[in-house]
Amino acid sequence: MDLGRFLAVARGDEPADLVLKGGRVINVFTGEIAEADVALAGGLIAGIGEGYAGHQEVHIGERYICPGLIDAHVHIESSMVTPFQFARAVVPRGTTTVVCDPHEIANVVGTAGIRYMLEASEGLPLTVYVNLPSCVPATPMGTAGAELTVEDLVPLADHPRVLGLAEMMNLPGLVLGVPEVVAKVEAFRDRVIDGHAPGFSGKWLQAYAGAGPGSDHECTTPEEMRERLRLGMRVFLREATGAKNLRDLLPALTPVNTRRCALCTDDRHPADLLDEGHIDHLIRLAVAEGLDPVTAIQLATLNAAEAFGLRDRGAIAPGRRADLVVFSDLQDFHAEMVFSAGRLVAQAGEPVGTWVEPTADDSAVRSTIRVAWDRVRLDVPAPDPAAVTARVRVIGIVPDQILTEHLVEEVPVREGMVVADPQRDLLKVAVIERHRGTGNVGLGFVHGIGLKRGALAGSVGHDAHNLVVAGCDDESMLTAARAVAHLDGGLVAAAGGEVLAQVPLPIAGLMSDQPLERVRHEMDRLVEAAHALGSPLHDPFMVLGFLALEVIPALRLTDQGLVDVEAFDFVPLFVE
Amino acid sequence: MDLGRFLAVARGDEPADLVLKGGRVINVFTGEIAEADVALAGGLIAGIGEGYAGHQEVHIGERYICPGLIDAHVHIESSMVTPFQFARAVVPRGTTTVVCDPHEIANVVGTAGIRYMLEASEGLPLTVYVNLPSCVPATPMGTAGAELTVEDLVPLADHPRVLGLAEMMNLPGLVLGVPEVVAKVEAFRDRVIDGHAPGFSGKWLQAYAGAGPGSDHECTTPEEMRERLRLGMRVFLREATGAKNLRDLLPALTPVNTRRCALCTDDRHPADLLDEGHIDHLIRLAVAEGLDPVTAIQLATLNAAEAFGLRDRGAIAPGRRADLVVFSDLQDFHAEMVFSAGRLVAQAGEPVGTWVEPTADDSAVRSTIRVAWDRVRLDVPAPDPAAVTARVRVIGIVPDQILTEHLVEEVPVREGMVVADPQRDLLKVAVIERHRGTGNVGLGFVHGIGLKRGALAGSVGHDAHNLVVAGCDDESMLTAARAVAHLDGGLVAAAGGEVLAQVPLPIAGLMSDQPLERVRHEMDRLVEAAHALGSPLHDPFMVLGFLALEVIPALRLTDQGLVDVEAFDFVPLFVE
Repeated sequence: MDLGRFLAVARGDEPADLVLKGGRVINVFTGEIAEADVALAGGLIAGIGEGYAGHQEVHIGERYICPGLIDAHVHIESSMVTPFQFARAVVPRGTTTVVCDPHEIANVVGTAGIRYMLEASEGLPLTVYVNLPSCVPATPMGTAGAELTVEDLVPLADHPRVLGLAEMMNLPGLVLGVPEVVAKVEAFRDRVIDGHAPGFSGKWLQAYAGAGPGSDHECTTPEEMRERLRLGMRVFLREATGAKNLRDLLPALTPVNTRRCALCTDDRHPADLLDEGHIDHLIRLAVAEGLDPVTAIQLATLNAAEAFGLRDRGAIAPGRRADLVVFSDLQDFHAEMVFSAGRLVAQAGEPVGTWVEPTADDSAVRSTIRVAWDRVRLDVPAPDPAAVTARVRVIGIVPDQILTEHLVEEVPVREGMVVADPQRDLLKVAVIERHRGTGNVGLGFVHGIGLKRGALAGSVGHDAHNLVVAGCDDESMLTAARAVAHLDGGLVAAAGGEVLAQVPLPIAGLMSDQPLERVRHEMDRLVEAAHALGSPLHDPFMVLGFLALEVIPALRLTDQGLVDVEAFDFVPLFVE
Repeated sequence: MDLGRFLAVARGDEPADLVLKGGRVINVFTGEIAEADVALAGGLIAGIGEGYAGHQEVHIGERYICPGLIDAHVHIESSMVTPFQFARAVVPRGTTTVVCDPHEIANVVGTAGIRYMLEASEGLPLTVYVNLPSCVPATPMGTAGAELTVEDLVPLADHPRVLGLAEMMNLPGLVLGVPEVVAKVEAFRDRVIDGHAPGFSGKWLQAYAGAGPGSDHECTTPEEMRERLRLGMRVFLREATGAKNLRDLLPALTPVNTRRCALCTDDRHPADLLDEGHIDHLIRLAVAEGLDPVTAIQLATLNAAEAFGLRDRGAIAPGRRADLVVFSDLQDFHAEMVFSAGRLVAQAGEPVGTWVEPTADDSAVRSTIRVAWDRVRLDVPAPDPAAVTARVRVIGIVPDQILTEHLVEEVPVREGMVVADPQRDLLKVAVIERHRGTGNVGLGFVHGIGLKRGALAGSVGHDAHNLVVAGCDDESMLTAARAVAHLDGGLVAAAGGEVLAQVPLPIAGLMSDQPLERVRHEMDRLVEAAHALGSPLHDPFMVLGFLALEVIPALRLTDQGLVDVEAFDFVPLFVE
């Protein structure tokens, strides 16, 4: 910033770059709404009030102006597009800042993935702050593409857009004082440390909060939220594609505690981003539920800025970044104009002006699928080759939840091998290690995907992001899995030897390099193909993507085998 | 902190150092008051709730526990005692953290004074944070003992107790972009910068706020306060010895803006600290005026902590410093027990336990009075030696205000010299340069001190802290001034050749090394002596101390001469 010019404009001695005239300015400090001009200079807000002239003037009329929206916690990878394409999608909806956790790409390519996300978000109209992934890999029970130690993380901490440490998911590890976990928290003691404490309470939660993590975005009930607020944790109210918590938590907000709360999306898939929106959707939802609109905007602006010590944004005030949203209806927030650092970057829901895609070195994040196909076998010998059936553990899908059930079912034995039984919705599932070519294949069964024929496969498989394949027969499964590898990552539906639909995700096997609309279109086709194969699920690939997540109860499958999450250990497939 | 032990105590696996049992815990995050035990370990709060055992347990009974109080802006020098003695006085009243601005001592000895204040406050039960004085000297029109450039300040910024830059008083300099002023603000851009903007509003205030200063403690009206809050400035509501603004400002507090407000004392003299109190006095005052007691405590704790980014204190929550106050009556806050970092340090209004006085190198802050007495002349030749009177400018004291009037009066001429006329309350006043032995003496007249005979002198003379003497005759004035020098600084009342009473202030001429009670006693005697000499003023030495403050209208006297503050220039003594 040229302070001399800023001061001259603020004093009224020089014309501003741009003056937004006559709007109703939302003051998140005082809760007031006042008609005032807003003068912008050098990307900053230089003055608010009467008597500012500008080289350019825009008449806002009767419309409202609020600060640009902030997402307090998001995994951009879940949008399945690059930061550039993500920004093209969310900035027109009013979001000008996100705090992202590149946890997914870090599980694939480690620090190279974090560096890629930083480079690929440089200079965008969306400020992408990064909290460094604290828990890569999630556990030692799956094979991820990288392991991040405190020594790996610390050199990244000096980047101007790195704020601190992202969601510390290893609550038991921290509370019990596991040295590697403690070391990470100690290294980021003076920075922001985000928490992740689903279901915890009482003394363990106090120990956790006291050791460093200062926020939680995993609350699902008002009582959980109140407990965290009492402990001084900030609460980020989440409305993701999977976990939709905002409505449930709103009753816990009070005039006193609101300052400690913000909004986040965590994971939102392409269709939700396009059909519902981003943080703007959360504002609409909260207001529809009865929250005061200015309070909702505070949650999405000043409160998030304060949570991360971002004193340069989150409010319409002199000296702050001119990240601004113009909209018409307090009761139904829809961004009509979006300014980033004083520049009009979106209008009527579409990007406008010049958007330069950052040049990021993506060599490390492409061609990440390394599978030793010669060692990949999907057949599962039965304990008794002569038996007609065998008793196996089965991952039971729970509709609309990430939690699974730990089932035991009889599956058929054919030619000495246990096989899927699509008529009873018992599919075979394989997790194929794809980072290091180990040839690891975890094999099991799943109930609830509903395919009658064919197979679904993907390289999105939280958190290790190995290949996950579920299907009715081995040929279809191999076709789907090999097609994913052929794409350098992606999602595929196949039957027999034929690929029916596919979404290429060549960046780390997680993200497309295409616009969100295109990915959404491809996803729609893919899900149609899955439906044609018999799956009734709204989004069978989301279910597939969580089958390998060995930290969420009850039964999961990694490339190393079946995991009983509650026992935190491997269990055999067969039950005697 | 030993995180392992902290975690063990927090989990409940090891006994705490101390458990405060059964108190009513004030939660400044949620506004709730809940009966709970508070477990302390390693100086931190380890847990809140049931089931904690401790090596030591204290039954709080029905009493309340709140976080230690924080003074958001204070000049410790105004207490006229060292940081150690200041802490002995304020900690028993519940204050455990202050953000001080060593502006006064810096005007006398520069960075050596700042370093002394840091050393002299090391390891106290009171955490003394320092904001670096931004405006030394106040103007070039008085001779201070030091000049602090940005190059002087930056090396101090790394001290763990230095937070940022203290009150930026040169508002015009910053708003107009004066390079030396801008350089200081730029150097502290990423730190806290406190503001000081009395009476300013509109575009200049916006330019100022936008350029860096993020707070103001100079509001006197609700409207001023509201304007600053709208601009994103934090407001510290002040109740000093001189400027009492708290009551006037309380009506501007709202549930929405309270988070942006805190409390400060700025300057409180010994008698006020002892008779009224410190931040506890402000809480009582606010509650008596109708403010919710928990809100008042929020202002004095969490809000101040947030203003300075102090995430380790300001609340009773796991992991925060165990700075705690136990008290009985929400409506009449009086600290009964005070804990600092988990240690009981005061009880029933008195320090308890071991208080170790820090060993500070005070060589640079003692023996600071350097006057070229051979060149000091107090007689003032009249323009017309034969005339009976002469017309002179007179500084008019305004009761209970720091502002002065710019008067013109006739004073007698005796033997060719203009002299005081005590019958009409026209005293002679001299400001004698005392830092560098320049021999500078500024001479003038003052109305409103009321001495009938004798003189008052002191080495406290804001902001340059030269010797200020007012009296009825030159002999008394010289006696008083020389006595101050003989004390290496202090306050003196004299008549003729006799010193009637004195308060030694050997540290930079500003502070005693004695306990506050003793200084207060000496001050009482001194003021009695001034009263005996005819002054009706409640505190004539406070009036004397501001006579030289060339930044507050209307007429002032520095060692270089009479200053018309509104014209920001020197003016002659005599008027034709």
